[in-house]
Amino acid sequence: MLTSFFNPRGVAVVGASRDPHKLGYGVIRNLVEYRYKGKIYPVNPVASEILDHPCYPTVGEVPDPVDLAVIVLPAHRVTEAVDACGERGIRHVIVVSGGFRETGPQGKQLEDELAQTARKHGIRLLGPNCIGSIDTHTPVNTTFVVGMPHEGDIGFVSQSGAMVAAVIDWARAAGVGFSRIVSLGNQIDVNVTEMITAMVDDPQTRVITAYIEGIVDGRAFREALEAAARHKPVVIIKAGQGSSGAKAVASHTGALAGSAEVYSAVFEHSGALQAEDMETLFDWARGLAWQPLPRGNRVAVLTNAGGPGILTVDALEAAGLSLAQLTDETREYLRKRLPPAASIANPVDVLAGSGPGIYGLALDALLSDPTVDAALVIQAPQDWFLPASLAEVVGEVAAVHHKPVLASIMGLASVDQASQILHQRHIPNFAFPERGASTLAAMLHRREWLEIPPEEPPAMDGVDRAAATAALAGERYYELIGAYRIPVCPSQLATSAEEAAEMAEAAGFPVVLKLVSPELTHKTDVGGVKLDLKDKATVREAFGQIYAAAKAAAPDATIRGVLVQRMLREGQEVIVGMRRDPQFGPLILVGSGGVEVELLRDVATGMAPLTRRQAEQMLASTLAGKRLNGLRGAPPADRAAVIDAMLRLSRLACDFPEISELEINPLYALPKGQGAFAVDVRGTRVKT
Amino acid sequence: MLTSFFNPRGVAVVGASRDPHKLGYGVIRNLVEYRYKGKIYPVNPVASEILDHPCYPTVGEVPDPVDLAVIVLPAHRVTEAVDACGERGIRHVIVVSGGFRETGPQGKQLEDELAQTARKHGIRLLGPNCIGSIDTHTPVNTTFVVGMPHEGDIGFVSQSGAMVAAVIDWARAAGVGFSRIVSLGNQIDVNVTEMITAMVDDPQTRVITAYIEGIVDGRAFREALEAAARHKPVVIIKAGQGSSGAKAVASHTGALAGSAEVYSAVFEHSGALQAEDMETLFDWARGLAWQPLPRGNRVAVLTNAGGPGILTVDALEAAGLSLAQLTDETREYLRKRLPPAASIANPVDVLAGSGPGIYGLALDALLSDPTVDAALVIQAPQDWFLPASLAEVVGEVAAVHHKPVLASIMGLASVDQASQILHQRHIPNFAFPERGASTLAAMLHRREWLEIPPEEPPAMDGVDRAAATAALAGERYYELIGAYRIPVCPSQLATSAEEAAEMAEAAGFPVVLKLVSPELTHKTDVGGVKLDLKDKATVREAFGQIYAAAKAAAPDATIRGVLVQRMLREGQEVIVGMRRDPQFGPLILVGSGGVEVELLRDVATGMAPLTRRQAEQMLASTLAGKRLNGLRGAPPADRAAVIDAMLRLSRLACDFPEISELEINPLYALPKGQGAFAVDVRGTRVKT
Repeated sequence: MLTSFFNPRGVAVVGASRDPHKLGYGVIRNLVEYRYKGKIYPVNPVASEILDHPCYPTVGEVPDPVDLAVIVLPAHRVTEAVDACGERGIRHVIVVSGGFRETGPQGKQLEDELAQTARKHGIRLLGPNCIGSIDTHTPVNTTFVVGMPHEGDIGFVSQSGAMVAAVIDWARAAGVGFSRIVSLGNQIDVNVTEMITAMVDDPQTRVITAYIEGIVDGRAFREALEAAARHKPVVIIKAGQGSSGAKAVASHTGALAGSAEVYSAVFEHSGALQAEDMETLFDWARGLAWQPLPRGNRVAVLTNAGGPGILTVDALEAAGLSLAQLTDETREYLRKRLPPAASIANPVDVLAGSGPGIYGLALDALLSDPTVDAALVIQAPQDWFLPASLAEVVGEVAAVHHKPVLASIMGLASVDQASQILHQRHIPNFAFPERGASTLAAMLHRREWLEIPPEEPPAMDGVDRAAATAALAGERYYELIGAYRIPVCPSQLATSAEEAAEMAEAAGFPVVLKLVSPELTHKTDVGGVKLDLKDKATVREAFGQIYAAAKAAAPDATIRGVLVQRMLREGQEVIVGMRRDPQFGPLILVGSGGVEVELLRDVATGMAPLTRRQAEQMLASTLAGKRLNGLRGAPPADRAAVIDAMLRLSRLACDFPEISELEINPLYALPKGQGAFAVDVRGTRVKT
Repeated sequence: MLTSFFNPRGVAVVGASRDPHKLGYGVIRNLVEYRYKGKIYPVNPVASEILDHPCYPTVGEVPDPVDLAVIVLPAHRVTEAVDACGERGIRHVIVVSGGFRETGPQGKQLEDELAQTARKHGIRLLGPNCIGSIDTHTPVNTTFVVGMPHEGDIGFVSQSGAMVAAVIDWARAAGVGFSRIVSLGNQIDVNVTEMITAMVDDPQTRVITAYIEGIVDGRAFREALEAAARHKPVVIIKAGQGSSGAKAVASHTGALAGSAEVYSAVFEHSGALQAEDMETLFDWARGLAWQPLPRGNRVAVLTNAGGPGILTVDALEAAGLSLAQLTDETREYLRKRLPPAASIANPVDVLAGSGPGIYGLALDALLSDPTVDAALVIQAPQDWFLPASLAEVVGEVAAVHHKPVLASIMGLASVDQASQILHQRHIPNFAFPERGASTLAAMLHRREWLEIPPEEPPAMDGVDRAAATAALAGERYYELIGAYRIPVCPSQLATSAEEAAEMAEAAGFPVVLKLVSPELTHKTDVGGVKLDLKDKATVREAFGQIYAAAKAAAPDATIRGVLVQRMLREGQEVIVGMRRDPQFGPLILVGSGGVEVELLRDVATGMAPLTRRQAEQMLASTLAGKRLNGLRGAPPADRAAVIDAMLRLSRLACDFPEISELEINPLYALPKGQGAFAVDVRGTRVKT
């Protein structure tokens, strides 16, 4: 358990200093100043006391109770100090010191020795190269950073110490409270996965936020994330999304950053919400921590001015929310109480002259209306009523209903008090209302995820693992998917023009010829595909052309022959593929196939093993999925067969970790009831 | 000229009050409190003085100098007061009073009388139902809103008074200065178009920002916008983008809101930047007002911590910017001065222990590097140096270079002074760095727009206006586009199966048959199209099927016959269309055509008349344009012929205002050099 990092009975600070410019002073100062009630033991061989706390020359001499040590020494002295902590029986250590892996090979060696020493004593170690931990409820602040956030219910786990410092500074002025804040540093022992789980166990934390750059054990992370999200909202910002960003991550923490799509699929699957920037992260966190989740997407907007109402409606629509229609009863109620020129349709505009009294009645009516799932209350600055009065009314009225209420008492200079009151009453307030829309959308997204009934990946019948094993050993990928009952378009390999012509006649015209060459996998590009061949003579001619084109493209390429397939018509081309991520395992993708894959980039990705619902949602989110419903005039295609292929590929990917990539493109979906056939298959094995 | 609204010699306040709760008091208070240096004349029949300014019983008795009146009376007394202003020789009037068009038909009548009276006297009238105007340099504040922004160089024009109030309150606390702020109200005389032009003429305004809901004279607005953007950056937020939003606009100001796409095309064409929310509006405004435009998209990131650097890189890439590579010279310079563990590759990480001295050297080196177009300076909170010191260094070093510099001295509680210093030195500062990326992208976008060489819409040869006029009169749209030399796929109208078979033989097999019926324009949906017919027998049969299908779909539909066309192959289907916006005139669109138009929604829009560059850019921005380059294996299509069709359609749309919509779908683009043919054409005339 990691509780000693957040609620220790006594803290030894190894490397404590009397010099206010040193980190070893800052840690003692923060423990004292931010009212830590346990024992504080500065360890310093020369000083007698620091901030009225008597010093101990070595950690071995520190008396009971002590269950946490914070080490602030030069890197080369840290391992020795951790050893001493172990001898003294301290089992939780925070290493603030930098100078390890992040500085190069020599630092890496120091870090390895440090890890070994910690392991030897069974010490749980946070860091090195971290800022430490804060629990505002205990309270304890083991960092050296000036400032302490208010007590609150947001937990924040960060792989960047700088981000922790920035958030502490921002949170104090923004009036956003936190429960726990942890800086992870180089994560040689305690990592982000464990810390997220520790936040689940913390009763003060109502929402878990995290800044992450990279993950080492993808599977454990995924499982912890999903388990956490079942209990509490989890909001994550993933840094290093782009290509250069990933490079910056690599040089920064040495952690291997996965690609943006994999992380997004992991977050989506696990029920974690992904924010795009830090401000959004904490906007969402406030809504999720403080307000109930909306039951649906119908929002009531209550405003005293038209303009802000319109902007809010724009933002709501952009976020996928809609305006509640309001019942006649609500409208009638409002008509009797609002000024004659007020708008009683949603957005409800009480006009500039209305104050907290009218707002209160209107908000109560809106929250009582069964067509309303959530309310956004806006007040443009006016000079007749105190903004704080509205804040109190909104807080009280919201509390007697069970629907989410967000506020935008607009402006900055005159609304400090109002904003504080709202935050005390757990109503998130925004300087401009557009951000409220994004927050409500995140809350709705969570609600929808929670409501997905649990579902196991389906068992797949008729799977022949032995045949698949053999096919994979020979890198025969058509055979491999066939062994998992993904139908393959019947085809035969011809090695002469005459053989091709005979096979074509047997298959039935028109046919397609396709080059088979391990080196030339992008067949279309090199002229290795001939379509719609209608008779034997044309087939013979096309055979010769393909051989010639292949030789021209790559004189040394191995040509195994030419595949002869009957040409399918009246179907639609879909791509179904898998790729194995080194951290998160197999990823399944589906989208528009054929030659337009790269142009359209119409692809949805999901983590294997897929459930049927997941497969259906992925397909539905693509253009390909919409096309399968039947375009104007064209018949609907066999959607079920495509789903089946996705599920079988998912199973195959999980059963054979040695498959690195496998791609069916196109999977040819025939009209409903007629199935889907893999026309072209490519694969690669994991390099060993 | 509208200068008297911003620099009057004397202001009469009609309806001035001694009661601090009344607007008529607020206006006097603001004039006095915010140090207006001209004459202030309260007009009040009973009071003797207000805030030490003697009252006048009527506006007729107000002495010289007076060139502006602010009217704060009940709606029914406003017209009379404006008449009195006219008699007194006052030619500029602000009507704060509400109770006009926005309240219904009776208010509309009052408003019409008011407009007529103003016109009679040649009075320029701002409002009614507005908040008034502010000029911080004069200074003069004719509003009743508490608070006055600092002097600055951002002008703000708003169709929402509430937004003006919110911005004033926000600006004071955010430390963002303004030059002029104007609330337009119901715009019965002075409108947003004129105000934007007035901002161009104001030497204190360096960037023009506007909140707009709807426009009445689209052409004048477009022209004013483009003229303004040539001189100064213009940033606009357009409210009422979605469907419900547009409804809210209609009920709010009675102005007709155009669709989101039309406005975006107008802004893009005119060089105005469109912001999505209020905070972004003023982020961009600060960058544009204070810093030079970047010459390219290569950004240097200078930071003291990895995490914020990585997030910034993500944001830069998402905004279309890239990381500068840095010269060897720069890296060497940095290597000698930065701590050994620092990152000297971009993002340059000076590490937590570095302060303003090192930052200054590094920033100077980066700005001196020819591979750097702009710099973003980030400081995560640290406890060794004052954030204010870095602010001063960044301000000074930036000033000796001519490249844009933006800052993010992160946090909120500890950075007030630093943020103020940066803003005084005209370096935009952001609490988190991601917003700097969006701002730099907006600045680059403006630079690119300014560099587009002026270009006239090309003249089109071979246009036969007389033939077009005749074709349009008969609603023969194939003939209409033919008269403008857009090639039409040869076709003939058959009215019997035998006739169709004969025509097909003459055209050459395979052919296509298409139903011609004014009621059944979506032919494919009703089974009115038969493709790839290879002989006379099949054509006869298909003819019968089409008639039967049409009868089945709509028994009363007029069937004019069936078009017989040769079937085109090896080409690509594009849609080229126009639609006339009631406010902005003809809009041209291009995109992926055929049956997938609605599925793909792959469309670019531009205002007619198009220049050649515009047409090319539009096409290039679509998937259709990329497909024309030739997909894998397929030959490139005749792009020039598609551009030509767009330009000719644009010309046609401008020449014939009576065309409401005209759509070529598909325009069939053959391989390069072989042209493009309109296969199907639909049009509608403007309803009169």
